[in-house]
Amino acid sequence: MNHVRHAVILAAGISSRLMGIVNDRPKGFLQFGNKSIIEESITKLIKVGITNIVIVTGYHYKYYDKLKEKYPFIVTIKNRYFENTGSMYSLFIAKELINNDFLLLESDLIYEYKALQVIQNSSFNNCILLSGRTNSGDEVYVGIIEDRIVNLSKNPAVIKKLGGELVGISKISYDLYKMMAEQGEKQFKKSQQYQYEDCLTDLSDLNIINYELVEDLAWTEIDDNNHFKKAKKIIYPLIQKKDSEFIISKKIRRNILLNPGPATTTDTVKQSMVVEDICPREKEFGELLESIREDLVRIVHGEDYYDVVLFASSGTGAIEACLTSVVPDNKSVMIINNGAYGKRMQQICNSFGVNHIDYNIDWSNPVDPRTLETIIRENKGELSHIAFIHHETTVGILNPLEQISKLATKYDIELIVDAMSSFAGIPINVNILNIHYLISSANKCIQGMAGISFVIFNKTSLDKIKNFKKQNFYFNLYDNYRFFSQHNQMQFTPPVQVLYALRQAINEYFIETEDGRAKRYTETYEVLVTGLKKLGFKFLVKNNYHAKILTAIIVPKDHNYNFTEMHDYLYERGFTIYPGKSTKQNTFRLANMGEIYKEDIVKFLKCLGNFKKIKNISTAP
Amino acid sequence: MNHVRHAVILAAGISSRLMGIVNDRPKGFLQFGNKSIIEESITKLIKVGITNIVIVTGYHYKYYDKLKEKYPFIVTIKNRYFENTGSMYSLFIAKELINNDFLLLESDLIYEYKALQVIQNSSFNNCILLSGRTNSGDEVYVGIIEDRIVNLSKNPAVIKKLGGELVGISKISYDLYKMMAEQGEKQFKKSQQYQYEDCLTDLSDLNIINYELVEDLAWTEIDDNNHFKKAKKIIYPLIQKKDSEFIISKKIRRNILLNPGPATTTDTVKQSMVVEDICPREKEFGELLESIREDLVRIVHGEDYYDVVLFASSGTGAIEACLTSVVPDNKSVMIINNGAYGKRMQQICNSFGVNHIDYNIDWSNPVDPRTLETIIRENKGELSHIAFIHHETTVGILNPLEQISKLATKYDIELIVDAMSSFAGIPINVNILNIHYLISSANKCIQGMAGISFVIFNKTSLDKIKNFKKQNFYFNLYDNYRFFSQHNQMQFTPPVQVLYALRQAINEYFIETEDGRAKRYTETYEVLVTGLKKLGFKFLVKNNYHAKILTAIIVPKDHNYNFTEMHDYLYERGFTIYPGKSTKQNTFRLANMGEIYKEDIVKFLKCLGNFKKIKNISTAP
Repeated sequence: MNHVRHAVILAAGISSRLMGIVNDRPKGFLQFGNKSIIEESITKLIKVGITNIVIVTGYHYKYYDKLKEKYPFIVTIKNRYFENTGSMYSLFIAKELINNDFLLLESDLIYEYKALQVIQNSSFNNCILLSGRTNSGDEVYVGIIEDRIVNLSKNPAVIKKLGGELVGISKISYDLYKMMAEQGEKQFKKSQQYQYEDCLTDLSDLNIINYELVEDLAWTEIDDNNHFKKAKKIIYPLIQKKDSEFIISKKIRRNILLNPGPATTTDTVKQSMVVEDICPREKEFGELLESIREDLVRIVHGEDYYDVVLFASSGTGAIEACLTSVVPDNKSVMIINNGAYGKRMQQICNSFGVNHIDYNIDWSNPVDPRTLETIIRENKGELSHIAFIHHETTVGILNPLEQISKLATKYDIELIVDAMSSFAGIPINVNILNIHYLISSANKCIQGMAGISFVIFNKTSLDKIKNFKKQNFYFNLYDNYRFFSQHNQMQFTPPVQVLYALRQAINEYFIETEDGRAKRYTETYEVLVTGLKKLGFKFLVKNNYHAKILTAIIVPKDHNYNFTEMHDYLYERGFTIYPGKSTKQNTFRLANMGEIYKEDIVKFLKCLGNFKKIKNISTAP
Repeated sequence: MNHVRHAVILAAGISSRLMGIVNDRPKGFLQFGNKSIIEESITKLIKVGITNIVIVTGYHYKYYDKLKEKYPFIVTIKNRYFENTGSMYSLFIAKELINNDFLLLESDLIYEYKALQVIQNSSFNNCILLSGRTNSGDEVYVGIIEDRIVNLSKNPAVIKKLGGELVGISKISYDLYKMMAEQGEKQFKKSQQYQYEDCLTDLSDLNIINYELVEDLAWTEIDDNNHFKKAKKIIYPLIQKKDSEFIISKKIRRNILLNPGPATTTDTVKQSMVVEDICPREKEFGELLESIREDLVRIVHGEDYYDVVLFASSGTGAIEACLTSVVPDNKSVMIINNGAYGKRMQQICNSFGVNHIDYNIDWSNPVDPRTLETIIRENKGELSHIAFIHHETTVGILNPLEQISKLATKYDIELIVDAMSSFAGIPINVNILNIHYLISSANKCIQGMAGISFVIFNKTSLDKIKNFKKQNFYFNLYDNYRFFSQHNQMQFTPPVQVLYALRQAINEYFIETEDGRAKRYTETYEVLVTGLKKLGFKFLVKNNYHAKILTAIIVPKDHNYNFTEMHDYLYERGFTIYPGKSTKQNTFRLANMGEIYKEDIVKFLKCLGNFKKIKNISTAP
């Protein structure tokens, strides 16, 4: 279900029964409070995220045209035959301006904000808003079967099962609109006095038009003097009251994200972003930053010898910061590439002219320590750094940090570890492993929100780059560090709320403990691969190289298999899966990072099994 | 009021009255549910953001030492004389480990999570937690006067006015701790059986020790078998129940930020960040991005000819992206510098080796169009771009966009406008003004959250840079644009929640309308400067150059004036002011961007006036 961003307002009609009240202007320009009812309606539409509005005008159309100056996203189109045509004709002539799902409204409505919320959040693609009894004298009754509408009529006698009264606010999918337009064209040959309500009745056989009922909705259309008086005295004040009391109560569904981050987070991490506005140059915020920095270093056991710099960027930003700041001009960094992220390191170096020597490996294969040593030995004098991806999520391989570290130490080369998708998921001790730079971000295994990346570094190593010629600015590692040291602030404006979320995520990591989190991840992985094997799936990477945080699965050769279909089936059920990135074989990927438990994986496997069955997909080789 | 990040747990005591229940271990290792009470307590401490815990051990200290493996932020210190000393002695010997405000707890407590929330959120720096009647048989009664404690005693007869019962959870400021330590040292000469409660009584004359009362708090200390039985049967299950029902209800105070962004936001923008977890590579998220991009372009009336690239970064990132991506190798950009942000543009160019020709102006002075034209004419062949800051927040000057635009057009030079602090605050039409690149961020006048910056560009201009040699990576403008075009996604992981906030902020901008927002800003500015003048303040920039979004005020020459004092006085009252950045004269700065109204400014002026009066500050020249 997606939020609709478009609306069509039908506003062509004459205010014949309101003469003396509106006189020479359209009904939409009736005034309640300090706004016309059309502006009130537009404001409510914007509030639910609608910023594309088509108004079909006719009677005194210039009033509507003038609104465009105030609201740049309003488009008007005039129904020249407004005096002799019905509402379906107005909707029909807007054809050239409609190419999306939209909300359909009448211009003479006043209604609670809740009305739009309900219709926006409805899971139905085509959805008519109904209310309880209004006694307006002008009711359109809606007949229903189950959750669908079957007919609409002013005559209650023709309604078998009453769903409620038509409000005049609907969500229409583009597909339905095309059918309505077609049906309209047919009818116009007989009569142009065809109403859109009748069109909906005529198409109800399709069984695709549903409804949402709000029993106690405060609303009215204003068609005559009686409506107007009642609206002024009772309904408008009631709407004002109900709107002021309305709290946007979003149901936060728990989605299981099996993509490799941003990961599923706890509700407490989500809620922790809602904080008082604060200037990030304040001491109070500095203390928050300090506590976060201290704890990020602790997570990798770098107390005393390590510090950290935070960046307002994705993880890639921190990688760029490290590679473009630490390699001396006359030296090279060796880059191990067995996946897209290793390759990205090479691309960064190319863009900035940082010398690099590459150890390229087929993307599903592990590092060979002997080959690695040979390359190191061949380039010994030239190499100042080795950089590699700890957990390469391209294929889900865990590169041998300990072995690489030993070689780096042996040849006195500094170590840069991209721990983007392993930090806080796999225990790492920077001190013992002699890691000089370790890079990660807030939205992976630490289970915070995206927007913050960081480089944890050995302080002695960083001190060496102090006087290096600058070849970057925003991502200059040393300058950013110096600013932290001097001001206890970030050099450039940080994403304040993302940092509060990170604080909470770190708290929750410490509550779960290092071992606790690693154990949970391993367990969800075990349940996942066992289940996948049972379903007949094969894995790209040999088991003993699995990082146990992400698994690349070879796609079935069966022509019944289609990734998008599988994705959409699972997505609707709350599970997000991820396409593959391997070069050798087609894969899809499942990550088990984030606030995910064994039971979630069991539910996912059941869904996946159902899909396989329904689509009759064979996983036989 | 700051959140405390440190805690001290007093855990030296012998479990003498619990023999048979705990036997050879400290009281903190009594087990309820599947956790020891000390671990339950640590978990709750982490939940409120405490990740520095000192445990003073004694009796069977090794149990506590072992906890350090699981929680890397625990430090223990042993009271060797635990058998013959009181709790104040334990607190005293932790001296070397305490250098911050901290929460003080006893190790044998079980309590609701709420207890810590109340004490953390208390506005008092020194604060003792009290509960209603417990009938535990071991009560310590607390006598109060107004909001302060005056004495603590097990004998209710000595209490004049009862505040409640002592729980054993307190917030102690570092200043108070130092006084307690001093008082302790004095007392130890008489007896080392001195309790910290007695010390608090002895220091209550200082009138700085307050309390918070939670009438119905579920808690108990466990000192003997009766406590233990009651805890097991009644209190622990009650705590479990109350904790599970506890909802973190933060009061979101409305702060008035007068710093130049991040600005005061609405509650609806804050709340809009709480969304279901979503992978930003999903189609649904792509649609959100698309709607935001469309609307950002509309705000500056760039429909049809303009598009926009978003970056996960502060505003500076987008500036870097533009300057390092669009200037041809063999050409130069002219940079107008009359403030820190103009200067920053030059620094970026220097870091990346982008040629620039500078027009440097004293930081409180406006651009002189004749001088500008002369420099342009002198460098005509070499210049491809002019870059400048529309609203230079260093001093609050509005640079003459229209005049600069005319010159750029006349000499056929492309225009780069840093509209960081003017976009959505001052109406801009990129089409009419012939702006080629316009840069801003989500957390200024558009009133969203920090974490997103963007470059709005003329599509024809961008097309010209398509084949430029790359000299950056993360901030490569064309690559990021290409990725948007091809995938409807951001190239690198975006700050998901910040984008939902931006969507909501744009909605609210459209509701207020372009004119409406500009008018509100101008009005708050008028109220501000009128009030400041009344108070005798003078402004750095001549009135006709004011941007009306930020004002730089010359600091009074009076030696009674002190910025930090003024800042802190106002900060406590909900107003955040900002230091100056001018080179010529000392200033402080007040911005009126964000969700701020005339009434807020009136309140602020009253506070400022009070401060001036209290401190007897003269604004005479």
